[in-house]
Amino acid sequence: MTAEKPRIGILGAGALGAFYGARLFRAGHDVHFLMRRDFDHVRAHGIEVRSFEGDFRITPPVYPDAKSLGPCDLVIIGLKSTDNSALPALLEPLCHPSTVVLTLQNGLGNEEQVARALAGQDAGERVMGGIAFLCSNRTGPGQIHHIDHGWIRLGEFRGKARPRTEGVAELFRSSGIRCEVYDSLLQARWEKLVWNIPFNGLGVAACADTAAILADPELTGLVHGLMEEVGRAAAVDGVTIPPELCERMVANTRTMGSYRTSMQIDFEQGRRLEVESILGEPLRRARRGGVEVPRLEMLHVLVQRLDRFFSAGAQHSGGPRCGKVG
Amino acid sequence: MTAEKPRIGILGAGALGAFYGARLFRAGHDVHFLMRRDFDHVRAHGIEVRSFEGDFRITPPVYPDAKSLGPCDLVIIGLKSTDNSALPALLEPLCHPSTVVLTLQNGLGNEEQVARALAGQDAGERVMGGIAFLCSNRTGPGQIHHIDHGWIRLGEFRGKARPRTEGVAELFRSSGIRCEVYDSLLQARWEKLVWNIPFNGLGVAACADTAAILADPELTGLVHGLMEEVGRAAAVDGVTIPPELCERMVANTRTMGSYRTSMQIDFEQGRRLEVESILGEPLRRARRGGVEVPRLEMLHVLVQRLDRFFSAGAQHSGGPRCGKVG
Repeated sequence: MTAEKPRIGILGAGALGAFYGARLFRAGHDVHFLMRRDFDHVRAHGIEVRSFEGDFRITPPVYPDAKSLGPCDLVIIGLKSTDNSALPALLEPLCHPSTVVLTLQNGLGNEEQVARALAGQDAGERVMGGIAFLCSNRTGPGQIHHIDHGWIRLGEFRGKARPRTEGVAELFRSSGIRCEVYDSLLQARWEKLVWNIPFNGLGVAACADTAAILADPELTGLVHGLMEEVGRAAAVDGVTIPPELCERMVANTRTMGSYRTSMQIDFEQGRRLEVESILGEPLRRARRGGVEVPRLEMLHVLVQRLDRFFSAGAQHSGGPRCGKVG
Repeated sequence: MTAEKPRIGILGAGALGAFYGARLFRAGHDVHFLMRRDFDHVRAHGIEVRSFEGDFRITPPVYPDAKSLGPCDLVIIGLKSTDNSALPALLEPLCHPSTVVLTLQNGLGNEEQVARALAGQDAGERVMGGIAFLCSNRTGPGQIHHIDHGWIRLGEFRGKARPRTEGVAELFRSSGIRCEVYDSLLQARWEKLVWNIPFNGLGVAACADTAAILADPELTGLVHGLMEEVGRAAAVDGVTIPPELCERMVANTRTMGSYRTSMQIDFEQGRRLEVESILGEPLRRARRGGVEVPRLEMLHVLVQRLDRFFSAGAQHSGGPRCGKVG
């Protein structure tokens, strides 16, 4: 990615991809959207962002398939990680030899999957990762509701931050997106998992939002137990989780009110859950290091089962299974 | 309980109490039923048992409250353990100084609660416990469907089996109920828990019947992990679980097909779950002995949460939450 004005492709234009793509486009960047479900609507009406930072609408170039979009200098992946098996076919037409691919997906293992999808020697060198702290929903075709936050932690998949890392961070910053560059992407990913594993996993297994979890002393104890296990799993990856991080995260979460994680919302709406990137891959790394993580293991088994069971059932019933009750 | 023909009171005439009471009554014993919900129906139409061992109907004496039933020589408790707070008021009018009280309830801690309800010195001496291996449902007012099994393991709450233990066992045997007398009721209770904890708990937490659990290698691994923890908790109570018991139970369960545990059925029908007797009390005993049981602990937290959440919600929606899907 050496171009003065890089050609940016957005892959997976849902609540995350469409939001960041729209902000980049509005700031004057050369952004192109690959859309399937929403293609017709967005070609006709553009993308509408309702945001606590101000509503706006854009009418960007949009393409129904990767081939018509063609090669980009920077590809930003906002797909759900459950769709990663499609990456090789999707990325091939979007990449030239120096294309940089940035995944903003949740959890662990996505950079590896992107690198494998790119194939070729040094494919990993072309991969960057970012952790999006974003609260947004897709509310309809081409409609995004940006509820809160939006900042990003960015890093290289291989090695420390370098000039191009700052370059990509500047793209976001110039679009009004706060963007922190990390020397260790892995550190940033594990730190996020310390929160994501208990609150996403228990959101599903206990049918509980953050407030319900933290209102129950025993569930809160389980959150701490899980965080501690994630810390031990991170150590296998050479990452140290500061013990006070867990305390601080729980305290911060108490200020968030009744927050429903993406996994809980996906579950309630009958969508596939990001089980493997959020729970499965961290578990596998713990096992590789011989670290005992019985709570994480059990959470993974339960959420995996509920995902398979209800994503099969949801096709029939279509209804929510653990919504709020009066 | 010294009477030639003991006066027997049945407390909690649901799928379990009404079944055993009806069998005892049919065999000519002096059985009296305390019924609330089904009182009017049973007074008019009796109790109807549809059974794989032969259908029958009885018209026994039935009472709307404990006071009108009055003192018995033997009280058999078939209440759900979630109703144990009612025991002191219910038992007081049913007991004379030598009344024996037999609880056929699930899990751990019921004998203790009966003894506390009886109060007085040596109250524990008057308590017996039994483990019912019974597959039956209440299908309507005064209607019991006896699907399979029906045998009982019987023991004393305090001390080994004695002549009266055999006496009560004979009452059942004379009614065609297989009844084994155990010298250690605690041993029998923990052995049952080795099965009940994983299959009842995961029935709720994973929305899975026995076949679904054992079709999934990771859930099956969790069953083994839980059984092993129950074995270590039992050791705190001085009970040794033979390691081959777990293997045998899993193998036997495979032959049972798609069996739904009582807790899973209660959950699907929005009824209160026997969380504390099946999961909570075994957990507390493990903790008392300083034994680490992270899977049992987590299962208890999750099922407790789901019980509270859905038994609140069920009053509003009334619908099942984890029924079969096509």
